[in-house]
Amino acid sequence: MNRRLRLGMVGGGQGAFIGAVHRMAARMTDAFDLVAGALSSDPARSLASAVALGISPDRSYEDFSEMAKREAQREDGIDVVAIVTPNHLHFAAARAFLEAGIHVICDKPVTSTYADAQALQQIAEASGKLFILTHNYTGYPMVREAQSRVKNGRLGALRFIQVEYTQDWLATAVETTGVKQAAWRTDPDKAGIGGALGDIGTHAWNLAAFISGEIPSEILADLSTFVEGRQLDDNAMVLLRYANGASGSLWVSQVAMGYENRLSIRLIGEKASLEWNHDMPDQLLFTPLNDSTQKLTRQGPGVGEASKRVSHVPGGHPEGYLEAFCVIYAEAARAINATKTDTDISKDVQYPTLCDGISGLAFVQACVLSSRRGGTWVKL
Amino acid sequence: MNRRLRLGMVGGGQGAFIGAVHRMAARMTDAFDLVAGALSSDPARSLASAVALGISPDRSYEDFSEMAKREAQREDGIDVVAIVTPNHLHFAAARAFLEAGIHVICDKPVTSTYADAQALQQIAEASGKLFILTHNYTGYPMVREAQSRVKNGRLGALRFIQVEYTQDWLATAVETTGVKQAAWRTDPDKAGIGGALGDIGTHAWNLAAFISGEIPSEILADLSTFVEGRQLDDNAMVLLRYANGASGSLWVSQVAMGYENRLSIRLIGEKASLEWNHDMPDQLLFTPLNDSTQKLTRQGPGVGEASKRVSHVPGGHPEGYLEAFCVIYAEAARAINATKTDTDISKDVQYPTLCDGISGLAFVQACVLSSRRGGTWVKL
Amino acid sequence: MNRRLRLGMVGGGQGAFIGAVHRMAARMTDAFDLVAGALSSDPARSLASAVALGISPDRSYEDFSEMAKREAQREDGIDVVAIVTPNHLHFAAARAFLEAGIHVICDKPVTSTYADAQALQQIAEASGKLFILTHNYTGYPMVREAQSRVKNGRLGALRFIQVEYTQDWLATAVETTGVKQAAWRTDPDKAGIGGALGDIGTHAWNLAAFISGEIPSEILADLSTFVEGRQLDDNAMVLLRYANGASGSLWVSQVAMGYENRLSIRLIGEKASLEWNHDMPDQLLFTPLNDSTQKLTRQGPGVGEASKRVSHVPGGHPEGYLEAFCVIYAEAARAINATKTDTDISKDVQYPTLCDGISGLAFVQACVLSSRRGGTWVKL
Amino acid sequence: MNRRLRLGMVGGGQGAFIGAVHRMAARMTDAFDLVAGALSSDPARSLASAVALGISPDRSYEDFSEMAKREAQREDGIDVVAIVTPNHLHFAAARAFLEAGIHVICDKPVTSTYADAQALQQIAEASGKLFILTHNYTGYPMVREAQSRVKNGRLGALRFIQVEYTQDWLATAVETTGVKQAAWRTDPDKAGIGGALGDIGTHAWNLAAFISGEIPSEILADLSTFVEGRQLDDNAMVLLRYANGASGSLWVSQVAMGYENRLSIRLIGEKASLEWNHDMPDQLLFTPLNDSTQKLTRQGPGVGEASKRVSHVPGGHPEGYLEAFCVIYAEAARAINATKTDTDISKDVQYPTLCDGISGLAFVQACVLSSRRGGTWVKL
Repeated sequence: MNRRLRLGMVGGGQGAFIGAVHRMAARMTDAFDLVAGALSSDPARSLASAVALGISPDRSYEDFSEMAKREAQREDGIDVVAIVTPNHLHFAAARAFLEAGIHVICDKPVTSTYADAQALQQIAEASGKLFILTHNYTGYPMVREAQSRVKNGRLGALRFIQVEYTQDWLATAVETTGVKQAAWRTDPDKAGIGGALGDIGTHAWNLAAFISGEIPSEILADLSTFVEGRQLDDNAMVLLRYANGASGSLWVSQVAMGYENRLSIRLIGEKASLEWNHDMPDQLLFTPLNDSTQKLTRQGPGVGEASKRVSHVPGGHPEGYLEAFCVIYAEAARAINATKTDTDISKDVQYPTLCDGISGLAFVQACVLSSRRGGTWVKL
Repeated sequence: MNRRLRLGMVGGGQGAFIGAVHRMAARMTDAFDLVAGALSSDPARSLASAVALGISPDRSYEDFSEMAKREAQREDGIDVVAIVTPNHLHFAAARAFLEAGIHVICDKPVTSTYADAQALQQIAEASGKLFILTHNYTGYPMVREAQSRVKNGRLGALRFIQVEYTQDWLATAVETTGVKQAAWRTDPDKAGIGGALGDIGTHAWNLAAFISGEIPSEILADLSTFVEGRQLDDNAMVLLRYANGASGSLWVSQVAMGYENRLSIRLIGEKASLEWNHDMPDQLLFTPLNDSTQKLTRQGPGVGEASKRVSHVPGGHPEGYLEAFCVIYAEAARAINATKTDTDISKDVQYPTLCDGISGLAFVQACVLSSRRGGTWVKL
Repeated sequence: MNRRLRLGMVGGGQGAFIGAVHRMAARMTDAFDLVAGALSSDPARSLASAVALGISPDRSYEDFSEMAKREAQREDGIDVVAIVTPNHLHFAAARAFLEAGIHVICDKPVTSTYADAQALQQIAEASGKLFILTHNYTGYPMVREAQSRVKNGRLGALRFIQVEYTQDWLATAVETTGVKQAAWRTDPDKAGIGGALGDIGTHAWNLAAFISGEIPSEILADLSTFVEGRQLDDNAMVLLRYANGASGSLWVSQVAMGYENRLSIRLIGEKASLEWNHDMPDQLLFTPLNDSTQKLTRQGPGVGEASKRVSHVPGGHPEGYLEAFCVIYAEAARAINATKTDTDISKDVQYPTLCDGISGLAFVQACVLSSRRGGTWVKL
Repeated sequence: MNRRLRLGMVGGGQGAFIGAVHRMAARMTDAFDLVAGALSSDPARSLASAVALGISPDRSYEDFSEMAKREAQREDGIDVVAIVTPNHLHFAAARAFLEAGIHVICDKPVTSTYADAQALQQIAEASGKLFILTHNYTGYPMVREAQSRVKNGRLGALRFIQVEYTQDWLATAVETTGVKQAAWRTDPDKAGIGGALGDIGTHAWNLAAFISGEIPSEILADLSTFVEGRQLDDNAMVLLRYANGASGSLWVSQVAMGYENRLSIRLIGEKASLEWNHDMPDQLLFTPLNDSTQKLTRQGPGVGEASKRVSHVPGGHPEGYLEAFCVIYAEAARAINATKTDTDISKDVQYPTLCDGISGLAFVQACVLSSRRGGTWVKL
């Protein structure tokens, strides 16, 4: 029986979206207690948010540096911090906690720039602490099942990967109308060089890599900014080439009417194909060569331990976004607990890391470079 | 800001399904602390389960009567108990806690018999305490939206309701193979007189009543037991007649291959129709007379406060079974807190009650009666 | 190589719906030439319609009796007549042609009353001519595949059949607004005693019988007429009981918003289940016990000769209503040609007959009787 | 009332696929009589095929040149010829008939090479005869509706087009196993320089152009040949850029397990989006900005004359591939008849022409060029 972990949070004050998601995910695991926070850059809101969440006022901090320092000194200090600020603050916050000897759970993208991400990796390695990146889509049981089928050779050699992540909430210039979530995501100073690419393209990229086990060796991107006055891409079409001859495409859009938040992926192999859609995340379509398409379900016939291990409720009872997010937190808890006992958990636990984050930023950087060159192939 | 509520649990020890669901739902609300339990009839398992859940050993009880008595005496005693045992124990447990002045959250069906349920209502009324029945499907945001559209007259007079709840896990005699969940559900001593009817038919009945705001005035049931040797129904087709001339049907089956856990409902009115499927719970199909079918989504265009109030994450991020269950717990917390301040929350909070439970048992009883009479109409 | 068959038509003049469908179906087979007709009760419209269809004016008749008599006398007289009038004229027209020694293809329901249908059967038997009833839904390849799987024991003993046929075009009193198609279908003098039951319920009944190979031994019906002033049922819910212990339900509605013309059927057996929807007629869902649901397609893996024999184009190229209708005509052509050579084609050809028509009328009659008795079980 | 047209056919003898489709489509229109043919390069098969189709032996020709010459001389010679041979014979056959003064209906792609197609255009212009190319997907009513909505400005400025056409029948080297359809399609001498690109990519290209009314100004293609030993592409991913700033992608594959023949297109505009899938061709999804997705149906609410004019049966009665193909033939008949009377039918008739064919070949040529250059942008 493991001790419950003490969790701190940076960002995620009142009005934020992803901070609340992290907290719900943490609660669902039953493995964390939220005990400290620097929840907002506005001190009053920070304190009010902390109180509302049951954090003791003396552990509500005005800035994350102070928080890292003081929590590291406490005997009952936090084991791990969740960083849920806008992108441009990830680096400094993560550094502060890692250097203070505190594990980090960080929202994606890991940092604003590729260089920062690489620097952070050195810091993380030096710290000996864990860095968990919340590419939450890898927490879906049927995404795990898909990965497992690729690993087990059920698809044979991969031929083509088609992944897309489409939303419609930025189809007009909502960033100019006071929508805070839109404002920072379309501001290069806060979001980095990628718009839709950074915000959701990195998820699509990560999902393809997670399931296929492969990273493209070169890419070519055609970026668009359809909404006038916007500074970053809001639509991108990316071609993928893999060293082994496979190819693929990645489409990301935040102006695609009809798609609130649609992530889907198809993998075509020489022996079978797979299709997964975020709309019905408990289902995976599997088509072997010369056989009918099968609708696999989360705990249904033929579905293995990879899916079942991260399921919460029996099949037919829909799981969703929070459950998948919770899986990442549960994996984080297992991994952190294992560090205390030097247990090898590599077979049983799987979570996105700084490497995934660096890969995501390399992807964004390559796309922007490809686009600036007029749409040419760029090696990764 | 409300104080967190102290929660106890009866049943739900290691290996149980629905107890774990209740705990996850309670955690997701961030409004409850689980502090006491009589988690199993087996004392050793009870204690082990309690410890694993972080319950202090001195608040792990061997039976619920003792638990009710002792918790009522503590200054920090539980505010509310969750009863998640097999059906036949609901009555006695609920009575014990209500009489001890403790609010009750109870899994469905409320009791094994209609008579017990009526008796329990008197006990509950005498106690002045709340009784929340976890007909969790009423917690889905799009079910709330459906209810709201009926209430607001968007469908006009209701004409026909078609509801079905189909599963396949009892397609063979798994109750004879050591599957505990199957064993008690097919045992009249533990489940009551209804098999599939009691287990899932009551959910379908409740869902139809919740959305339509109407209870049939008479029903006719054709029960089947397809698996040899089984003592209770595993499939039932029920006709519904409403006082206002509407009619409907309710199909329930636990032998329907291809349906892990499919609950769906369609309501046909004179001005529009609605369709909701548990497979994609974030979606509601709405078809006005002489207009196209619209796919409404949880926080999408045209969807109102009834749905948004009970949403956890933005539209397009699938919510599922646990989120809906959590809604019932969150409503329970609001209602319990309101009792302390005599606030009228009837506009803002909605949860299933003993009345729903009694209605469900009346339904089961009427179905069984109808069936025994060879399939005749029975008034409710 | 068979000679092309000479086809006549009764009904189906300008403005009619089903007559045009019969003609397109006949043309698609390439086995018929339309050479004679009594296309309308209005002589002018009859002639104009004939000319527009390339029928020689001397073979455009003012009434079907004359047509039967004169065509029988011609050396190049029609081989077969298609009767596509409103229901109440089917009997007299069919009799005229059968007695004149001419094969009959007749739209459903076969006659307005059960008694007429029985009388017609004697006439048909005496004539030695074929009577083909266009229950066109039995022409869909995947309906054939479904039938074949039941026959081959893939489902094991049948347990439950759920069939529904829902439309919405009669959701308001369109019959009072000059819609001719609605007017005769809601007029007992022309349609018979069944409204939705006769018009589309008979299709649902036939489909269930065709696939399952079983006719219920008793039924119970709850009929509704939701549109004020309408004389016949516009919605009916029917319970089915089979002699072997299986049960089922049949829902038919013409007031169900959102369903233009939705026919679907599910068959649950002890070893597998099947689901077919008219929305995607080239697909059949098949779920074996303890296995995943498979999406079978018209010419896809695992699909047999029963489907392939009646396919027109390769799989993945959608077939629809006309193709299925054409299958009935093609089967009719094969059967008629076989009569000339006394070939036994029973293994290769399959079409709905007078027996199906009689069964359909028995169904309607039993439903109306059940309803008049307040919703009681009626033996068939 | 127009005279029926006399139709000849080149190719399409026994065993061929598309020839039979053309004949069924022609029959469904009721506007053509098939009276002459050069159905196979094998004289015996040619004659046998002709006889089986009811063509008089004296109008069954051994080669198309002779057929063109002799039919042109007959008073009752054919009005129009359908050319349904493998691709490499299209050019010579089309030239022969055009030069003989006979209208041409030709399967796609129009010729094997871009140069031939251009030459053919001059020949066609000189002849004054019509050239109808059977890009049959433009015959679907909901494709017409989609086009109409774009034209009417319902989508606003187009932003992104995503089109894909995926099949799986070439996932292995079936061309080496005696499958004739596969053999010529993968043979550059018969199919031209494009494999999947020519066979189905041209359909996708044409569909995007038809609906959007736009042709990309430059493209970039990444071609793959996944099956060892195959000489032409079996998968291609193409990026599209339009002069007005819109962009898009086109994916074509014949190795995509799970997709028998899936064509789908999505158009994202600034005011609305559209989605159409060949799986359910009678449906069109339409999502206006800030509104719910609407399921439009073939004759349903809000759907206009563009769809209704080319519908065969009422909504809810599925139409499919043959019906859409028939629309092209019906448009051809209207256009041919109009030539006799010099009627302007441009408002009422719409069919693919040589221009579409040339555009398709320009597309294939540009893709191959782009690919040979390693995947660079190529202007059209």
